[in-house]
Amino acid sequence: MKWEDNVRKVVPYVAGEQPKEKNVIKLNTNECPYPPAPGVNEVLVNMDCKEFRKYPDPDVTELREVLAHRYQVNPEQVFVGVGSDDVLSMAFLTYFNSDKPILFPDITYSFYDVWADLYRIPYEMQKLDENFCIVKEDYLKENGGIIIANPNAPTGLMTPVSVIEEIIQANQDVVVIVDEAYVDFGGESCLPLLKKYDNLLVVQTFSKSRSMAGMRIGFAIGNEKLISYLNDAKFSFNSYTMNMTAIAAGVASVKDDAYFTETVAKVIQTRERVKKELHELGFVFPDSKTNFIFAKHQTVSGQEIFDALRNEKIYVRHWNKPRIEDYLRISIGTDEEMDTMLGFLKSYLAQKQG
Amino acid sequence: MKWEDNVRKVVPYVAGEQPKEKNVIKLNTNECPYPPAPGVNEVLVNMDCKEFRKYPDPDVTELREVLAHRYQVNPEQVFVGVGSDDVLSMAFLTYFNSDKPILFPDITYSFYDVWADLYRIPYEMQKLDENFCIVKEDYLKENGGIIIANPNAPTGLMTPVSVIEEIIQANQDVVVIVDEAYVDFGGESCLPLLKKYDNLLVVQTFSKSRSMAGMRIGFAIGNEKLISYLNDAKFSFNSYTMNMTAIAAGVASVKDDAYFTETVAKVIQTRERVKKELHELGFVFPDSKTNFIFAKHQTVSGQEIFDALRNEKIYVRHWNKPRIEDYLRISIGTDEEMDTMLGFLKSYLAQKQG
Repeated sequence: MKWEDNVRKVVPYVAGEQPKEKNVIKLNTNECPYPPAPGVNEVLVNMDCKEFRKYPDPDVTELREVLAHRYQVNPEQVFVGVGSDDVLSMAFLTYFNSDKPILFPDITYSFYDVWADLYRIPYEMQKLDENFCIVKEDYLKENGGIIIANPNAPTGLMTPVSVIEEIIQANQDVVVIVDEAYVDFGGESCLPLLKKYDNLLVVQTFSKSRSMAGMRIGFAIGNEKLISYLNDAKFSFNSYTMNMTAIAAGVASVKDDAYFTETVAKVIQTRERVKKELHELGFVFPDSKTNFIFAKHQTVSGQEIFDALRNEKIYVRHWNKPRIEDYLRISIGTDEEMDTMLGFLKSYLAQKQG
Repeated sequence: MKWEDNVRKVVPYVAGEQPKEKNVIKLNTNECPYPPAPGVNEVLVNMDCKEFRKYPDPDVTELREVLAHRYQVNPEQVFVGVGSDDVLSMAFLTYFNSDKPILFPDITYSFYDVWADLYRIPYEMQKLDENFCIVKEDYLKENGGIIIANPNAPTGLMTPVSVIEEIIQANQDVVVIVDEAYVDFGGESCLPLLKKYDNLLVVQTFSKSRSMAGMRIGFAIGNEKLISYLNDAKFSFNSYTMNMTAIAAGVASVKDDAYFTETVAKVIQTRERVKKELHELGFVFPDSKTNFIFAKHQTVSGQEIFDALRNEKIYVRHWNKPRIEDYLRISIGTDEEMDTMLGFLKSYLAQKQG
């Protein structure tokens, strides 16, 4: 068909499966095992649905204000979107319009190259070293922009903020995005660097540490000028991206900092325990500062363990990609879920090796 | 700042005001004056917020299925987005990648040229005739795609489906989008043409006839191949655009067809009555098939009436643009709201003309 000639043909990102069957242990998309803050339920039950007939606040003022207060910035420095994917996608479209390639690691969130392809942004992946660490020097060459996930996914590794700062410092003529989707689980945020650099955009999400993947809320914080360009693009795309329930739920979540702290602490505690047990079972992994562990067994292949877990209705994530094909990305679930997985792995590996 | 060189600079669409003050009569953004179907409230009150920790269904299967059933197509022919703006924006990005200009009327939804600018799509506006009608011949020249709002906004005028079909027929090598945001208020849909043309995309919204502007739901229906390309682009942008509450609310709305029919009938009834009364007050207007009337007074300027109404906290929409600067776009509110407006206009115009 002739009209197909004008179609933008792309290879979409493939997200982790969202199985419809019940009774699975779902450790494949880094969701939080705990529910959102109790206030979220409260605002929804008390919501006046008659109001839905009207458009929501296009500026998402209330949510931007509570976020600004929480992160000690001005509301004009805060941008909100439909999950951090929406925010990052708009950021790519807005900031990465150079003929020079943008730079990001070869092993990282695999949406980066998808967005670059969608918007026809040239890019050059920089190889992580053999320990999955960023080689700082790779980011000191000419480029059209930089994006770094910190902590990185799927490795779980944190790059020291001092190293990120050196990269930003050397790249003040392009926009540097730091994707902090997982930073709440023990990472160190680059937000304090905003005082020094007007070309830095820090992106975070409600999908992990705030247990609201289902409500689709992400945000970016940056210099006011930088954010104003992002707003211009957003308002050229869709005036109202955040629906009324997302705004209300988001506000309720941010207001309950005690619940947030408690939830994150529980995930971290489980993670640290699971690290020890995986180690005892013969797994090796980079030291995760996230809500997942990127683990490889010393003798059994990634595909084999993946298939065995899947057989038990335990979903983890596995990529058939060079350098990481023997790794599994295991999200941190409840203690009970992790015990079920560890129990199975123990008997499976014993049988396998015995 | 040097990084600004790589920024995509755009002039965003300006939506109608969403005033924060109460006690205004809001007839400026074509919202429905009636609440959503009762089932919407019910699903939200009974929603299990614990589920929010998980990602929503990326395929929005349930909502696509009820829509497919309602419009007698296959679920694979249905695409859902964050309001019809999101759907249209993705459609521009997906389908309009020719070097030849896309075509649309000079007086129409003013987001079309904004999307074209955002994505750097060449475009050529075609002048509506002096009665705000489409000149069919203008759409028979070489082009990179066509978008027509039918009924058109802000004029409210319906182009006969037979005329649209002639345009589609002559343009089978490009994608033709028919934006039917207002079709439920007495217009005729192009959906039956889908059986004949694989290059036709019909876009509709929950924001007007389904009273859910605040929930941000829009959809497109087209040939399966056409929709699959739109999905590829969408999944290259954001895997999960529809949050859990939007999906549930949307499904509840579509399931209550009786409420939908009743709501639309009430709006139409009010509109027809208001037409008569505006006519008696000296207004002229194209014959609206939408939930608004695009009216011009025969002696008093648009700006003057706009200001006078605004002074009374009655918000309508006015554009300072050539050919339409004397028109006001007045959304159909409740009978009571319309009476307040008409009562004010009556005394205002009497004073003005006396």
